Amino acid sequence: MNTEIRRLLEDVKEGSVSVEDALLQLKKQPFEDLGYARVDLHRRLRQGVAEVIYGAGKTAEQIRGIVASMEKNGQKRILITRLPEERYAELDDARIAYHKDARFGLLGGMPEPDGLGSIVVACGGTSDIPVAEEAALTAEALGNEVVRLYDVGVAGLHRLLSHMDEIMSASVIIAIAGMEGALASVIGGLADCPVIAVPTSVGYGASFHGVSALLSMLNSCASGVTVVNIDNGFGAAYTASMINHKTR
Amino acid sequence: MNTEIRRLLEDVKEGSVSVEDALLQLKKQPFEDLGYARVDLHRRLRQGVAEVIYGAGKTAEQIRGIVASMEKNGQKRILITRLPEERYAELDDARIAYHKDARFGLLGGMPEPDGLGSIVVACGGTSDIPVAEEAALTAEALGNEVVRLYDVGVAGLHRLLSHMDEIMSASVIIAIAGMEGALASVIGGLADCPVIAVPTSVGYGASFHGVSALLSMLNSCASGVTVVNIDNGFGAAYTASMINHKTR
Amino acid sequence: MNTEIRRLLEDVKEGSVSVEDALLQLKKQPFEDLGYARVDLHRRLRQGVAEVIYGAGKTAEQIRGIVASMEKNGQKRILITRLPEERYAELDDARIAYHKDARFGLLGGMPEPDGLGSIVVACGGTSDIPVAEEAALTAEALGNEVVRLYDVGVAGLHRLLSHMDEIMSASVIIAIAGMEGALASVIGGLADCPVIAVPTSVGYGASFHGVSALLSMLNSCASGVTVVNIDNGFGAAYTASMINHKTR
Amino acid sequence: MNTEIRRLLEDVKEGSVSVEDALLQLKKQPFEDLGYARVDLHRRLRQGVAEVIYGAGKTAEQIRGIVASMEKNGQKRILITRLPEERYAELDDARIAYHKDARFGLLGGMPEPDGLGSIVVACGGTSDIPVAEEAALTAEALGNEVVRLYDVGVAGLHRLLSHMDEIMSASVIIAIAGMEGALASVIGGLADCPVIAVPTSVGYGASFHGVSALLSMLNSCASGVTVVNIDNGFGAAYTASMINHKTR
Amino acid sequence: MNTEIRRLLEDVKEGSVSVEDALLQLKKQPFEDLGYARVDLHRRLRQGVAEVIYGAGKTAEQIRGIVASMEKNGQKRILITRLPEERYAELDDARIAYHKDARFGLLGGMPEPDGLGSIVVACGGTSDIPVAEEAALTAEALGNEVVRLYDVGVAGLHRLLSHMDEIMSASVIIAIAGMEGALASVIGGLADCPVIAVPTSVGYGASFHGVSALLSMLNSCASGVTVVNIDNGFGAAYTASMINHKTR
Amino acid sequence: MNTEIRRLLEDVKEGSVSVEDALLQLKKQPFEDLGYARVDLHRRLRQGVAEVIYGAGKTAEQIRGIVASMEKNGQKRILITRLPEERYAELDDARIAYHKDARFGLLGGMPEPDGLGSIVVACGGTSDIPVAEEAALTAEALGNEVVRLYDVGVAGLHRLLSHMDEIMSASVIIAIAGMEGALASVIGGLADCPVIAVPTSVGYGASFHGVSALLSMLNSCASGVTVVNIDNGFGAAYTASMINHKTR
Amino acid sequence: MNTEIRRLLEDVKEGSVSVEDALLQLKKQPFEDLGYARVDLHRRLRQGVAEVIYGAGKTAEQIRGIVASMEKNGQKRILITRLPEERYAELDDARIAYHKDARFGLLGGMPEPDGLGSIVVACGGTSDIPVAEEAALTAEALGNEVVRLYDVGVAGLHRLLSHMDEIMSASVIIAIAGMEGALASVIGGLADCPVIAVPTSVGYGASFHGVSALLSMLNSCASGVTVVNIDNGFGAAYTASMINHKTR
Amino acid sequence: MNTEIRRLLEDVKEGSVSVEDALLQLKKQPFEDLGYARVDLHRRLRQGVAEVIYGAGKTAEQIRGIVASMEKNGQKRILITRLPEERYAELDDARIAYHKDARFGLLGGMPEPDGLGSIVVACGGTSDIPVAEEAALTAEALGNEVVRLYDVGVAGLHRLLSHMDEIMSASVIIAIAGMEGALASVIGGLADCPVIAVPTSVGYGASFHGVSALLSMLNSCASGVTVVNIDNGFGAAYTASMINHKTR
Repeated sequence: MNTEIRRLLEDVKEGSVSVEDALLQLKKQPFEDLGYARVDLHRRLRQGVAEVIYGAGKTAEQIRGIVASMEKNGQKRILITRLPEERYAELDDARIAYHKDARFGLLGGMPEPDGLGSIVVACGGTSDIPVAEEAALTAEALGNEVVRLYDVGVAGLHRLLSHMDEIMSASVIIAIAGMEGALASVIGGLADCPVIAVPTSVGYGASFHGVSALLSMLNSCASGVTVVNIDNGFGAAYTASMINHKTR
Repeated sequence: MNTEIRRLLEDVKEGSVSVEDALLQLKKQPFEDLGYARVDLHRRLRQGVAEVIYGAGKTAEQIRGIVASMEKNGQKRILITRLPEERYAELDDARIAYHKDARFGLLGGMPEPDGLGSIVVACGGTSDIPVAEEAALTAEALGNEVVRLYDVGVAGLHRLLSHMDEIMSASVIIAIAGMEGALASVIGGLADCPVIAVPTSVGYGASFHGVSALLSMLNSCASGVTVVNIDNGFGAAYTASMINHKTR
Repeated sequence: MNTEIRRLLEDVKEGSVSVEDALLQLKKQPFEDLGYARVDLHRRLRQGVAEVIYGAGKTAEQIRGIVASMEKNGQKRILITRLPEERYAELDDARIAYHKDARFGLLGGMPEPDGLGSIVVACGGTSDIPVAEEAALTAEALGNEVVRLYDVGVAGLHRLLSHMDEIMSASVIIAIAGMEGALASVIGGLADCPVIAVPTSVGYGASFHGVSALLSMLNSCASGVTVVNIDNGFGAAYTASMINHKTR
Repeated sequence: MNTEIRRLLEDVKEGSVSVEDALLQLKKQPFEDLGYARVDLHRRLRQGVAEVIYGAGKTAEQIRGIVASMEKNGQKRILITRLPEERYAELDDARIAYHKDARFGLLGGMPEPDGLGSIVVACGGTSDIPVAEEAALTAEALGNEVVRLYDVGVAGLHRLLSHMDEIMSASVIIAIAGMEGALASVIGGLADCPVIAVPTSVGYGASFHGVSALLSMLNSCASGVTVVNIDNGFGAAYTASMINHKTR
Repeated sequence: MNTEIRRLLEDVKEGSVSVEDALLQLKKQPFEDLGYARVDLHRRLRQGVAEVIYGAGKTAEQIRGIVASMEKNGQKRILITRLPEERYAELDDARIAYHKDARFGLLGGMPEPDGLGSIVVACGGTSDIPVAEEAALTAEALGNEVVRLYDVGVAGLHRLLSHMDEIMSASVIIAIAGMEGALASVIGGLADCPVIAVPTSVGYGASFHGVSALLSMLNSCASGVTVVNIDNGFGAAYTASMINHKTR
Repeated sequence: MNTEIRRLLEDVKEGSVSVEDALLQLKKQPFEDLGYARVDLHRRLRQGVAEVIYGAGKTAEQIRGIVASMEKNGQKRILITRLPEERYAELDDARIAYHKDARFGLLGGMPEPDGLGSIVVACGGTSDIPVAEEAALTAEALGNEVVRLYDVGVAGLHRLLSHMDEIMSASVIIAIAGMEGALASVIGGLADCPVIAVPTSVGYGASFHGVSALLSMLNSCASGVTVVNIDNGFGAAYTASMINHKTR
Repeated sequence: MNTEIRRLLEDVKEGSVSVEDALLQLKKQPFEDLGYARVDLHRRLRQGVAEVIYGAGKTAEQIRGIVASMEKNGQKRILITRLPEERYAELDDARIAYHKDARFGLLGGMPEPDGLGSIVVACGGTSDIPVAEEAALTAEALGNEVVRLYDVGVAGLHRLLSHMDEIMSASVIIAIAGMEGALASVIGGLADCPVIAVPTSVGYGASFHGVSALLSMLNSCASGVTVVNIDNGFGAAYTASMINHKTR
Repeated sequence: MNTEIRRLLEDVKEGSVSVEDALLQLKKQPFEDLGYARVDLHRRLRQGVAEVIYGAGKTAEQIRGIVASMEKNGQKRILITRLPEERYAELDDARIAYHKDARFGLLGGMPEPDGLGSIVVACGGTSDIPVAEEAALTAEALGNEVVRLYDVGVAGLHRLLSHMDEIMSASVIIAIAGMEGALASVIGGLADCPVIAVPTSVGYGASFHGVSALLSMLNSCASGVTVVNIDNGFGAAYTASMINHKTR
């Protein structure tokens, strides 16, 4: 931002931009105001990633409008997360590759992986797979190589231990589990890379829709574990990709 | 109870006990009423174990009174749990063997183990030791051989795995952990005996004084795990001893 | 596991197994990886019980695949818990004996009871019966004789007291109740065997879907009571069966 | 209030009271404003009981001021609840009969019982006695005969059942318990009079300072049970006395 | 119960009843075991009220069975609470008077009021009416005169104050409110009879389905207020009727 | 009220109103009792605003009745909040202007703004718009000029900062946000007018249906921020309008 | 801020400020960085009020440093809230007027009231007075006339109703209450000005340190009520003063 | 681990290690068992960092023992976190550099920074500094360059915005805040590197000892934000250092 302000100030000094115009420009939005949404057009530059639309609670019309605005501004690859199947059907856009379980839509196709290493996506049980797939697909769409380790819950420790190689060589690990969420601690104790824990709402009774797993993960006795919101596969993958693309 | 009622009824029939006396007897308490406490004198018979005094919230005078009443009725071995150090000092009774960390007092000495096998008491970290000792000492006082596995938390899995022999050969395992409480699930997945999980209030922030560990343990994905109240080392050992002395 | 490692090491020493193969074997999974699930084929050996499929959140196709994998590996008796009626219908497998209320499916028929004694399954009210039946059927499927005491809630104490004989002669008691969950404490005070308490989500308002009963049971003033997750009839029966089959 | 308004209006009509004075009188407080407290001087008339001072959070000076104001207005008997021992010492008023455990002070002496029947005050354990005594002393101070049944918790049901006579003949029962609070349900099922349940903060871990007992009692499956706040022995006794003095 | 035991013992003494038979009789249930329910046939005697069936979670067949068992044993008036409209339709029993909003069914017709005074049922808003009607109808069915004060919430205090006459002359008041539940405190401060507070699940957001109102009522600064579970109009009316029929 | 009482008393004095009539009048309700609702007819006078019907949980018939009663008493403009689309359809009243997203109905048309300044309604994301519109429409219906700033969440701060002019010149700001609710603090720090924060139930997982946002807002480190219930756009606008029409 | 940017840009254009200097100035903090605190020196201008130091968790040295920095920049009147008595003693600054109960310190003396009307500070009980005084003193220090109505809790409604004049003529009302917090709703229903509700941590048991009162107030059925954090007398007064000084 | 197993197997094959010895070695602990603790001696190798002792709940003697064991095994730099001042005094070890506010002890001196970039540690207010210093000192001890931005809370946004340069050039940012925790979202929206959010227990009332800030941060609408436990400055710094030392 500083650079832009500096250039603007120099333009003002040189007289190529009037004070009025500069003031206007400083206030001008680096986004398009669609009324119902302000599409952030500089975000890719500012944060270095493809644009993402959070699909939940948006109408097909709103999503279509946002996509159009992005494309008009040159965005090639667009992720639509939390996209319900009905909404996908309504969109009726053949260009969207849709993954039903993960409620994940993608425009522009998967890129080649260009990260430092691989991101391991591990989950505890079969019911955690939708969240795991949201994480895995997001990571792939952001240019990462992904290794999937599914149904490796701690109640059968040998299932996890048989994958020590993948765990030891990962760049980042996303540990996804519902119920008691112990997977994050066990992986955190085994791995020597950052572990991002994703509690899931899988479970019943005192799992309280993911709260038990969330608390477990926040209290992990293993160092190197950080946590995201319940079922937030996207958020975990987004941060994992940031780390896996680290250059400074 | 049925046996007693039957005998009483037969006595009534034979005339050796009057209706009035029988009625009185049916109402007579199998306990001594000390005003502040009703000392249960038949409990040992009814539930097959030594008598236990829950020391928390009782004055030295009250504890002394209950001990006296028990001894008067022939009780040889008495456990006093949750006995604060000051209270122990006030009691000033040289016969009580006192364990400060576990706040555990014992009258009548430790018995010989007479259970079916051994009870493993495992805990996650150094701070869990007071609860672990309450469990271990209780189990020993109730006639069990105890194997202590302390500081075997899941963040360093090799510490636990190096004790597979003890885990595999236990009669019952008491898994004690604070923070995220994952130890219960991991042990539950490895062992083939009942696991009694004890959450501890060890931790900070979102551990909520043991609630996180409690929830973890209730949601354990491993079968064979049951749970007791936070910091309830005594309760876990009591049940473990019942199982380890099982004859039918 | 130690025995297997020892044998493997001896084979390596004798040259009958190469280092490469041993390494591979150590890593080889004692489970079949179906992609969506890792079917644990050694569990029966390791934990001494029939295999169980947790049906909730699995598609008919996934369940079918897991059953096939188990049968291929010689498993004769398979329990499917939390199996919704629709899923059962989709499975369309005449060999499955299905109990609708308990959402319980069984392949391979009920075994003869071979435990030490009987397991009493007691519940507080009519609405708790589905959970009670899950517990009772599971216990029977794992080879236990089961005594059902239904609708014996503490508000009509005589209903429970009229069954003192069954309570006094049980090997393990499973106490199931919603609302205030007092049944566990009352039974715990009467019985001299382990009591496994199962809170149910029966109730309204401040029952908070079973939380009130859960808290009651965790705070039971009776010794010998341990607790499982809300509505977890299966878990209670699994542990009860372990205790009822105790040999060491 | 209607009667007073009517009389005032008649006085206005008759000219014996001016409009200005009537308006003033309607606004005049039936209480004395001490700055820090508005001592309610009509309450005894309005609600038919002795005046009560809630001692918690009040200075000795404030309590003294309120007592003086009440006495000036003819109040003979004054209860001071939640009166900490230090505050009692500071008050240094020989006329106050003080019960340390119950933190209960009384001016004017205990009255003769004049209720319809007796109020049974039952509590689960020794640690509940302070709350039970607050209830019992309050009930006595409000003119009720009180029967104390202490340490009759449900884990030793015979202790309670041996007092069926008192339970069956009570006018109201106050059931006081911490931990799992099951006493209220059991008594509620046995008695045929109103039961007022008082959860206590006795317990540890998942008792959450009385919340578990509170929830238990609110969910009581027995009819005729109502509940007051945690540790609120006074409130239970106040209502019990109302019921025991019922005339319409 | 004592009376019955005494008579039985006398019969044994006189030889008119054998020991075996007496033992059997002591164990014989004062209820009919329908398998899914134990219909309590002595409850009316024991607690002095008409029998009640809690309809929630029972099938039409189960309800029919319980009704039949009760009628066979001479019960004339039967209340069915929490009876969903569909279930009522399935029952298809013209003798049942059904109130849809209150989900309340009644067999045997309303009795003449025979209580000491009237029960005021007051509620805060229009949305609380179903709970209020459950309370009012239950109270009427148990023989009480009921005064309904609906939509008298504290935000428009004049609506409540205009009914001071009914409030001052009530035998018991049932104060029903959702949202912030302040009605109970305000009525508790105005009335000189017991007030039973019923929180309702009416509200949104931070009302947490009645928890806010429940907490308000438990913390009422007015004396004489006791509380029942959220939406428990029946329980409030049952206790109110007990108080209104008080004879000792 | 005082004025009315004074006048009444003077009328009594002058004999133009009898004591009986005055008493009656004092008790006469300034509302119409429809049975299911007491329509408050003086509220507009007493609180200076148009009448509002809270539509949730009311039948079409009840709403119609209340509207009729209000109109009969001269009310020109009526707001119906939380009016579900089906209910609106049932009402079938062409005079009602209905806004579907905001579930907001209006009779009598929008008034001219007559407030001191403008009310800014700002919300964090697209999904918050229904609550924002409820606030904006309510504010307009109460005679305020409204400036809408939608989708200005803090994750893209420039979207908010580009509207510093509107923020700095507002009379009151309503800050609406779900998820982490940080918008209120940021706006509170920038503005120099009162900020009314409205948490919304937008979010998932640990947003707990608006609780996270609610807690954020209550803990706002910015001064000048007050909070209303989750999703309570109406309440925020009502207070904002009061402030914007302030004359003393 | 816009005005400042505009001036700066004009200076750059005119050459009186270099681009480098402008950039620096744009980044220069309108606060003094003391290391442990950034004293906001423009806040008074930006938000129109005296500067406030939140004393909790700050050392005497830190407070002294902040005061010095403020005075150096011309601030005449400084409020120090949440100032513990010990800290006040340590400060040992005779210029600070200290109110012990309210933990409130003031430098520079009370100003003359210059608001539109008066702010009523009402509280429910004697124990709420510290919070009420924090609110009252803050309001006075910010230039408002304050009317104190203390101990006017809803359990004795006449105490509140006798002050209808003050309530009806207030500019803003701050309603402070612990326990069930009903005061806010009752006042909200009576007044026609904004009501700011302050829950206090006064109470015990299920008051949960103010949570019950907080929830009550958030769910207030009266319009015009907004809420601040528990015990936040300062925050309520700050907003009340904003409203009472409203000019647009 | 695989490498070690492979080498061991080869040794067995070659006969240089016997089967018995290999078995022993596989079981031999890579830690020293001190009874109360199992000091993990391979952790530095396994996870690439200096060893850390969690000081809370450990006696001086235990800490001394663990330090000795580590040093004996060649560990040069040891961090002791959560080390209370008394414990530090008891240790009486001049080699420990102690930071009182952060309760942080360090043996072996600060290393030279060797990470990829700098870690920004930002906190909202003065009271958050102890947690911030724990994070900053930990990061420095693990070889990172740290930039401290303290007291940059969102209520005075300009304080944060004046440090855009540091924010834009950071490798990782640790955002620390109590109360409403909005800092994490605002920084998350500005930065293009991973943000690790640390909620602190700073606040009062509805901050619930950090829960509000925790929930805010978990619900952050900004991507790239992950969260650790309340007050866990160490954990955040540990992960940040991992990311800042990323090589694959």
